[in-house]
Amino acid sequence: MSNQKTDMDVFFNPKSIAIIGASESFKFGYTMTNYLLNSNFKTYPVNINKDVIFGHKVFKSINDIPDDIELAIIVVKNEQVLEVVKESVNKGVKGIIIETAGFSETGIEKFIQIQDEIEKIAQNSNVRIIGPNCVGVTNFDNKFTTAEIDFNQSIEEGTISVIAQSGVLGNIFVEWSASQGIGFSKTITLGNKVDVDEIDMLEYLEKDKNTNVITIYLEGVKRGPELINILKKLNKPVLILKNGRSEIGSKAIKSHTGSIAGNDKIYETIFKQYSGIYRVNNFYEMFNIAQVFATQPLPKGKNIAIITSSGSLGILACDEIERLDLSLAVLNDTTMQKMKSISPNWTSLKNPVDLGPSLFMTFSQSLKAILNDENVDALLHIFAVPQQPIKDFSLPITPHLREMRNLSTKLKKPIIICVFGSRWVVEYFLKHSNKYKIPIMAQISHAIKAFKYMHEFAQSNKNINKKIEN
Amino acid sequence: MSNQKTDMDVFFNPKSIAIIGASESFKFGYTMTNYLLNSNFKTYPVNINKDVIFGHKVFKSINDIPDDIELAIIVVKNEQVLEVVKESVNKGVKGIIIETAGFSETGIEKFIQIQDEIEKIAQNSNVRIIGPNCVGVTNFDNKFTTAEIDFNQSIEEGTISVIAQSGVLGNIFVEWSASQGIGFSKTITLGNKVDVDEIDMLEYLEKDKNTNVITIYLEGVKRGPELINILKKLNKPVLILKNGRSEIGSKAIKSHTGSIAGNDKIYETIFKQYSGIYRVNNFYEMFNIAQVFATQPLPKGKNIAIITSSGSLGILACDEIERLDLSLAVLNDTTMQKMKSISPNWTSLKNPVDLGPSLFMTFSQSLKAILNDENVDALLHIFAVPQQPIKDFSLPITPHLREMRNLSTKLKKPIIICVFGSRWVVEYFLKHSNKYKIPIMAQISHAIKAFKYMHEFAQSNKNINKKIEN
Repeated sequence: MSNQKTDMDVFFNPKSIAIIGASESFKFGYTMTNYLLNSNFKTYPVNINKDVIFGHKVFKSINDIPDDIELAIIVVKNEQVLEVVKESVNKGVKGIIIETAGFSETGIEKFIQIQDEIEKIAQNSNVRIIGPNCVGVTNFDNKFTTAEIDFNQSIEEGTISVIAQSGVLGNIFVEWSASQGIGFSKTITLGNKVDVDEIDMLEYLEKDKNTNVITIYLEGVKRGPELINILKKLNKPVLILKNGRSEIGSKAIKSHTGSIAGNDKIYETIFKQYSGIYRVNNFYEMFNIAQVFATQPLPKGKNIAIITSSGSLGILACDEIERLDLSLAVLNDTTMQKMKSISPNWTSLKNPVDLGPSLFMTFSQSLKAILNDENVDALLHIFAVPQQPIKDFSLPITPHLREMRNLSTKLKKPIIICVFGSRWVVEYFLKHSNKYKIPIMAQISHAIKAFKYMHEFAQSNKNINKKIEN
Repeated sequence: MSNQKTDMDVFFNPKSIAIIGASESFKFGYTMTNYLLNSNFKTYPVNINKDVIFGHKVFKSINDIPDDIELAIIVVKNEQVLEVVKESVNKGVKGIIIETAGFSETGIEKFIQIQDEIEKIAQNSNVRIIGPNCVGVTNFDNKFTTAEIDFNQSIEEGTISVIAQSGVLGNIFVEWSASQGIGFSKTITLGNKVDVDEIDMLEYLEKDKNTNVITIYLEGVKRGPELINILKKLNKPVLILKNGRSEIGSKAIKSHTGSIAGNDKIYETIFKQYSGIYRVNNFYEMFNIAQVFATQPLPKGKNIAIITSSGSLGILACDEIERLDLSLAVLNDTTMQKMKSISPNWTSLKNPVDLGPSLFMTFSQSLKAILNDENVDALLHIFAVPQQPIKDFSLPITPHLREMRNLSTKLKKPIIICVFGSRWVVEYFLKHSNKYKIPIMAQISHAIKAFKYMHEFAQSNKNINKKIEN
């Protein structure tokens, strides 16, 4: 167990790679093969039926490669996987990622047996195996990927890492997140978990200096006590999405990655027991909240101020604040006087501060007054304006974002922006927001829940620090 | 009360219009003034300080206009509104929309009194008044609007109508909905409700032949018994978003449109008591579910089939199905055999049917087999694929949408698509989906809730019909 950390790193920083089943026809694995062969990662294609792929010489077997190989990526058909795993072990690889699907999740005895044999190989050698039935890993720090990630598209680098079962989190939600300005450090898909599991990866990510927030999508756990142990020890915030709450959902998990979902109430109890572990309800919520942890300072208290251009949405936020047992900040007299002196008589200045259409005139001064108010621990800015009203009209979004970032950093108060409206308005915001690292989201409930978890983490973190100091 | 319908119609089909406070400088009301003056609606600008606006002669007072005026739209400053209302009544208008804000919602005695006087004028005349503090109405059927809606942008026409308090629903969510392919018939914002309220509009929309689904955002109700009466009578599905559940939310409502939120438990009881009335949690949920009612046939039962390209997301859907007491359809042997004959050995064919990357090869035949299965009442299609993998690669989305539309119509089974991934994938879908009227959404929970409400409505609707027949 002592050399586990070294083992995991081979998946993220391999010195040499073989892609077994590499292909240049458009099918699963195409994007990865194309990317790695044209990258600086030392990559060798292996395919018994080909001579050249994307201009690179192809080897019939991994054992024909005249070089040491650290990592083997396997994308051959399911019937051929066992043989290729054996060859890779003989070659002396340190890690194997099996992406091919069609094993225990099929429920077919023949394929279950193949998976069992692969599991035994992992147990009886020093080789660590990820998969089968996954898309492997992506390391955004060095741009290494075994998934269908295209680094030529605008992919954001960040400090969120993801542990998941299957492909949807390995690439599809990475792309969604990128389009929201949410950035990652590592993503890991584990598939059927013959060897490497979430516990190995939690231990790796806890030490990883580029990871500040960990998100996990869980279908089932084989090593329950070990999971509890590592969750206890973790000093980074962890957001967990556990599916299979229902009976029919549990059955579906069996057909997906062959896992057993387990009793949901047990998970719920465990997640609640340890500080810094937060359960979320869906992928959007998971990544939106992770982005707040990754980019914003922790709040000192639970008093939230709201600046809105829509009264209705301000009220919705109030409902969420009360539901989650946070508080609506009571602005002090100085703040109110400052805002009154610059606002039209029809604006509603009591928190939630509804600036309505006067938003563009009075935002900067209102923002400054509110964030400097000692009664305010965090700010939600609700931005809801109609679409491009006149040609070439430009919203003063960039200076506002810059002001928010500067004040947030200086005063150590977290800010979240919720944007509503046409795609034009939302795109405009996202285009200008990335460099200022203020989280932008479409759901007020996610924003308030993020403040809630940040507040809890700030409290718990103090306890953890005290424990360490004593 | 007998001529109310005629009265309401003046707001949606006015023969002649005066905009009092019309302006060509960029401020509130600009887009509307620009649009109406250049439209076929007979519109007269009124402004005491101007002679010409957008090339149109301006009148100093509504009483200077040498024509009958049916509808006056008021956008002058709050201090001037009372005088201008009186002039409009003298002119003999049938309806007035006061968009100006700054009345009871400010909590300032002076402005509360002005609002009270306007209320008395409405009570003592035949003139009906919408507002103040709103953006009035939009009629998508004839393209009449008093809101900041730009019909030159791609706005969808449809059969959903909206009743709301304030601007965010009058324009911002209309724009969001348009970008999702969701279409409207009428939107109405009521503001502080000195006269016209949700009950007047519910009566109007119940009779309106272009409205099939009614959505309401409620902050508070003055005529409780009348609301219950109309909700009892309605034969169209109604989706209600009621804010101000919390104490602090209720207080914020007072500062927004001067309404009293009322006890949330009373609302909850009323909404649950009458069939066809469904409470929703946020605006996205409201419009996503409304779009399903507006475009899909009602399901005959509660058995849902899922075709997914992501196992994880299929499981999430299973959890939602069980949570809402619906059922996962058990596919019959014929369906399973048909699918087995065309699918690779690694696909998981038991519902949820996970086609994985084979989606593009086997979708059409799987779809046909599943929808023709007598055990299936409704279909959720979860589409999650990585972004544009190769240049000029085109997803076979259009033919799939056409097949879904044809089968859904022929077999009378509702279909919803949930799309996940990069903006590229989502945009691609939305661009090709509008004409096939299959609802596209990003939240699985909304899709399952839509099936739930559709199922309940199908049941209740039968009862309503029976009552009518007896």
